[in-house]
Amino acid sequence: MGIHGGDIYKNHVLIDFSVNINPLGIPKSVKDVLHETVEMCNKYPDMEEEKLKKAVSNMLAVPKESILFGNGASQLFMGVVHSIKPKKTVIPVPSFYGYEYAAKAAGGEIIYYETRKENAFQVTKDFYKVLTEDVDLLFLANPNNPTGNLLSKEDVKELLGYCRDRDIYVVLDESFIEFCGREFSILTDIEKFHNLILIRSFTKIFSIPGVRLGYLICNNYSLLYKIQRQLPEWNLSCFAQEAGCTCAREIDFMLKTKDYIKKERPFLENGLKQKGFSVFTSMANFIFFYSEKPLYEGLLKKGILIRDCRNFRGLWKGFYRIAVKNRKENEILLKEIGERTWEK
Amino acid sequence: MGIHGGDIYKNHVLIDFSVNINPLGIPKSVKDVLHETVEMCNKYPDMEEEKLKKAVSNMLAVPKESILFGNGASQLFMGVVHSIKPKKTVIPVPSFYGYEYAAKAAGGEIIYYETRKENAFQVTKDFYKVLTEDVDLLFLANPNNPTGNLLSKEDVKELLGYCRDRDIYVVLDESFIEFCGREFSILTDIEKFHNLILIRSFTKIFSIPGVRLGYLICNNYSLLYKIQRQLPEWNLSCFAQEAGCTCAREIDFMLKTKDYIKKERPFLENGLKQKGFSVFTSMANFIFFYSEKPLYEGLLKKGILIRDCRNFRGLWKGFYRIAVKNRKENEILLKEIGERTWEK
Repeated sequence: MGIHGGDIYKNHVLIDFSVNINPLGIPKSVKDVLHETVEMCNKYPDMEEEKLKKAVSNMLAVPKESILFGNGASQLFMGVVHSIKPKKTVIPVPSFYGYEYAAKAAGGEIIYYETRKENAFQVTKDFYKVLTEDVDLLFLANPNNPTGNLLSKEDVKELLGYCRDRDIYVVLDESFIEFCGREFSILTDIEKFHNLILIRSFTKIFSIPGVRLGYLICNNYSLLYKIQRQLPEWNLSCFAQEAGCTCAREIDFMLKTKDYIKKERPFLENGLKQKGFSVFTSMANFIFFYSEKPLYEGLLKKGILIRDCRNFRGLWKGFYRIAVKNRKENEILLKEIGERTWEK
Repeated sequence: MGIHGGDIYKNHVLIDFSVNINPLGIPKSVKDVLHETVEMCNKYPDMEEEKLKKAVSNMLAVPKESILFGNGASQLFMGVVHSIKPKKTVIPVPSFYGYEYAAKAAGGEIIYYETRKENAFQVTKDFYKVLTEDVDLLFLANPNNPTGNLLSKEDVKELLGYCRDRDIYVVLDESFIEFCGREFSILTDIEKFHNLILIRSFTKIFSIPGVRLGYLICNNYSLLYKIQRQLPEWNLSCFAQEAGCTCAREIDFMLKTKDYIKKERPFLENGLKQKGFSVFTSMANFIFFYSEKPLYEGLLKKGILIRDCRNFRGLWKGFYRIAVKNRKENEILLKEIGERTWEK
């Protein structure tokens, strides 16, 4: 069991519920452009990423100067820590391991704020106590992974303002926000927060983890330049640039996805509840739940990979995360997970 | 005119002599696998890069533990400076701008050792004088870019030993070595130099700059781990991993390329000499020369892009670099460059 989902290279997996990508798959237009791009690979990618910047700037309605692309969000996390060089970083847990990985690369101190099961692993008011003047950087995911918790826009703004007043940079990771709905994003308020580094990804919503494409939006141009200066000169492949341009025009696909998740997530949630699992409220395209009985190995034997969350910092045995997949796959999971529960 | 060649995104270019990639193009097998990879993009790439490591380890006959991949060599340069954090870096010039770019990201002092025109821009014995105990890192290209100079294996070994005795890490960039012949590579001697970080690239020899794939070979595993720790977790796209596996088996293609360059470079060199240009000796797949008359703008008007080298540190007006391309393209260049020379 790795520190991330998606251990498909070491296991025999028929259905992978362990990674949280769009059940609708890759848009056809994106596949088409990836094929076309093969013929362009003998050219250096555009260092300035002009075409992609314009496309994403259009999609988001933010100036292209506020956007910085990375070879996946994980490269942007590295760029952030290499530029800010935080002496003290705060990470609420459980959350995505990549924040810890990046913060450790920088070598400073890391404060893990443990959310509690009785609060459904939500960040509560006492979180402010750890955000002291000596903190340089906060990593925060909204919605959170693996829990699916979503902070309200008001709560996020309050938190960002609090951090701004204490010179704390905030990496706000909205990698899954498109599944919740863009109305939950802080995007329209970025100009209020010079301390905000907003992270987005094309990986999840367009099902292209293999391409590597993430971006950040930051209204603080000197900070953005500092981050960019720590990234390699030729950063994005031609595949990432071309796919990104096409993705940026797939607005309908994003809306369709949101509707699909809205319909399919309750189906899975109800199925799990009926089988006696404790299901946490999720606003994302994945479900976080607790099971007294072990599930991982039994499902894996049937070719179904789920995310055993016991190795998340702040969690323990019994927590699992599954992606919302298509109806047929979700039904198979519910069938198999049911059997396993009865067997033991 | 950018700091690198390949400004095809801002100019109307029919033939690009400004980037040094293989005139034989992308091997068919590599194009095929890139097309196949489109269907795999909905999976996360293998974080461990197991298949690719095995393939390249086989190709090079070095243990897979000695290999670290990057999203292009330029990412590896960044990984090196982020891990070593050099206080003082030495870069002989003229050379590839990427070394300076990476060293500046680290923020330390940079000593530029200027080679001289009267020595055909070769590193000479007085170079040792700048390699003092307080130097942390040396960037060195072999063959050098833009000059095409190749240091003998004996010279490289002497230099590496000298640096080893003074605790100077050496990034030896062999990105173009396959065009010269592998017998010139230091690869078979890496175990003698724990201070050596050998850089290689698939970009030039397999004509895939758009894919982003470079690697380093280092016999010092703790150093290698330190560098890896500064790279993002998911670093290589599925395209890079799959293309790399296929490239690693294309040994015949590499040999065929070397023979092609051996035949075609003298053709271009002689053509340039006949037109009165001063041509420097090159062992690589590009030619460095000097012209009293300006060439860049006139050729660009005809859709031919060459590399004006005046903005290389240590060079000035009148130096140019052209890639060795196929016979037909080389003939067009010689024809047009001749006309331009007579016109002015």
